Amino acid sequence: MTTALEDLADRLRDFAAARDWEQFHTPKNLAMALAGEVGELLAELQWLTPEESARVMRDPEAAGRMRSELADVAVYLVRLADVLGVDLIEAAHAKLDEGERRYDADTYRGSARKAPPLQ
Amino acid sequence: MTTALEDLADRLRDFAAARDWEQFHTPKNLAMALAGEVGELLAELQWLTPEESARVMRDPEAAGRMRSELADVAVYLVRLADVLGVDLIEAAHAKLDEGERRYDADTYRGSARKAPPLQ
Amino acid sequence: MTTALEDLADRLRDFAAARDWEQFHTPKNLAMALAGEVGELLAELQWLTPEESARVMRDPEAAGRMRSELADVAVYLVRLADVLGVDLIEAAHAKLDEGERRYDADTYRGSARKAPPLQ
Amino acid sequence: MTTALEDLADRLRDFAAARDWEQFHTPKNLAMALAGEVGELLAELQWLTPEESARVMRDPEAAGRMRSELADVAVYLVRLADVLGVDLIEAAHAKLDEGERRYDADTYRGSARKAPPLQ
Repeated sequence: MTTALEDLADRLRDFAAARDWEQFHTPKNLAMALAGEVGELLAELQWLTPEESARVMRDPEAAGRMRSELADVAVYLVRLADVLGVDLIEAAHAKLDEGERRYDADTYRGSARKAPPLQ
Repeated sequence: MTTALEDLADRLRDFAAARDWEQFHTPKNLAMALAGEVGELLAELQWLTPEESARVMRDPEAAGRMRSELADVAVYLVRLADVLGVDLIEAAHAKLDEGERRYDADTYRGSARKAPPLQ
Repeated sequence: MTTALEDLADRLRDFAAARDWEQFHTPKNLAMALAGEVGELLAELQWLTPEESARVMRDPEAAGRMRSELADVAVYLVRLADVLGVDLIEAAHAKLDEGERRYDADTYRGSARKAPPLQ
Repeated sequence: MTTALEDLADRLRDFAAARDWEQFHTPKNLAMALAGEVGELLAELQWLTPEESARVMRDPEAAGRMRSELADVAVYLVRLADVLGVDLIEAAHAKLDEGERRYDADTYRGSARKAPPLQ
């Protein structure tokens, strides 16, 4: 049985293969494409206050753009991880194991100063 | 039954709540954090040729850094999507449905000129 | 007589030539390096409120980091423009000429909604 | 006498003031806008080989887009530095002073491995 993430990676692999686009999908190129899409996501949020950004999904047009930009980012991240043979879920949990050791809940409560959250 | 991606989103939500860090996790801030992590990923690949980047996982140290950077990107993307209430898998498949209509396999075969792959 | 920006571009060219690093300074690689440095700039500001970000230079340590990150961004931008043969000052003024035509001061006063400032 | 860079910063300040846009031009927002523009620059170069990227200015249309994207990046960088009170030229030279000490020309000749150029 495959997971939803593996199914997506498979579909992206087939999509690239059907168009003979694997030649463009080097890690270097895919990382640039990922960064380009994240840039579009930033552009959606750059002039909003943090409070406005928290309400962005209430506006159907802005919500549609956010969904579209997040999808583009997800597509390139999943494709890049697949090309590199990295299991994103496993790698993310390893990061969180580390984060739980490094950022003791009591010490870091409410503070973005002492340590950047999740880093 | 929850998926692996939902489990990760749940764990991130709990991690933030336990540290009272939800206040920092606005879409604006999370998008910046996501972009910062993608910047670290680019830094790993910037001086490599595309061919060298395709072999980057053969060097255990570089492979470890790539896995770590991809994990950071995944963590912030999943957290951002959770805060916004966006289903990443569904949104990504909607993009691919559109991509399959727009980029007919025969017309776009082998060409990154006519259209940017996956966009 | 050369300008301060041309002097900086000359020094960067000499710096790269003395180390035989021109081979790495393709537009593709330099654009990635530029993006990586912008990512570090974002990381400095990601958890600050906009108001806190406006006071960031009052903290000597944070001010030093901001100056350092801005310098890195400037270095890669000037080097990239030099490699491409683009006059940044001229290109920026052309953008502003266009911006003044597109964003009539009376129509766009106080609004980041109607149009993204400076775009 | 003012420099070309100061003239550009002045014009940007006037442009923002005439539209009452200073309220949007916090360091946080401007850093996001800068990153968004760098994302557009990456998108221009993402599918090109490094060699193709070195010839990008030979194609008049691509050259125009590169000039336009570089201008956008320069505009936000100069505006951000102005808002923060940072002298970009001075900060960049300080970086190069440091780079010349750190990266001895003989030791680092031809090598992007031992140290990332210009960092």
